[in-house]
Amino acid sequence: MTQPVKIQPLTAAAFAPFGDIIARTATPSFTINDGQCDRYHDLARLEFTGGGRANISLARSRPAELPLRLTMVERHPLGSQAFIPVDGNPFLIVVAPDKNGTPGMPLAFMSNGAQGINYLRNTWHGILTPIGAEQTFVIIDRAGEGDNLQEHHFDAAFLVG
Amino acid sequence: MTQPVKIQPLTAAAFAPFGDIIARTATPSFTINDGQCDRYHDLARLEFTGGGRANISLARSRPAELPLRLTMVERHPLGSQAFIPVDGNPFLIVVAPDKNGTPGMPLAFMSNGAQGINYLRNTWHGILTPIGAEQTFVIIDRAGEGDNLQEHHFDAAFLVG
Repeated sequence: MTQPVKIQPLTAAAFAPFGDIIARTATPSFTINDGQCDRYHDLARLEFTGGGRANISLARSRPAELPLRLTMVERHPLGSQAFIPVDGNPFLIVVAPDKNGTPGMPLAFMSNGAQGINYLRNTWHGILTPIGAEQTFVIIDRAGEGDNLQEHHFDAAFLVG
Repeated sequence: MTQPVKIQPLTAAAFAPFGDIIARTATPSFTINDGQCDRYHDLARLEFTGGGRANISLARSRPAELPLRLTMVERHPLGSQAFIPVDGNPFLIVVAPDKNGTPGMPLAFMSNGAQGINYLRNTWHGILTPIGAEQTFVIIDRAGEGDNLQEHHFDAAFLVG
């Protein structure tokens, strides 16, 4: 039996316990280059611990379909992990609160395609899930030695969508 | 009198002294998420010194036209600075070698719109210059205290294009 998980709009307030939304807002932080460029500054709570460092990677991810059968989430104890879509297509974001070292009830959000996200260090989350079309993402996460991956497989799958 | 600067194709070899190209290549570094996602890993030589830290910002930049009258370049002594285009449009990249603390003859490259770039710490470069259309960029650079900006105004402008 699968438990349903509804998809919520991705808002900064709802997502704040899990991470940050990386998107332009109504007002830029400041303007640079003699007025030619609006900068939206320092949008994510980055954290790279355990002797690691920030790195920039790209990912090209095949799409999934809704409803999505969610059987697993993962987390990274040593660093935050940001995903910013390059192709402007929506993608699904699944997170879960931690309950004594295992994930609680998952929550699902949908990016509008202009919204990237940053998962806080050690936040349970689903895998990268474009909806409808392949998509390229910019990733900013931790590189370095150390055990930076925990996976949790649920006893019963959730159905997201 | 303006000296001309020709625009070269943006290749890793030509750009290496100044920075990195952030783009997907023929072969991914590795595949994740049960084969659903190709990762192109650790594409840029990031450096954040002087007690600073990495931050993720967005920029929305108005376009310029070619030929471009280049009167100024700048550099950041305390950190690298990466720009990755989100809208897929070309942008102009101007760099210059350092000659005893001032910029030498500028070089110009054109991104194909899928190529982002990372300027190495302390590399002379021009401002963000989309060509033809406004564009949003992901920026990964240094946040923190300290004097991280040097500008150089040329005695005579260069004409790029």
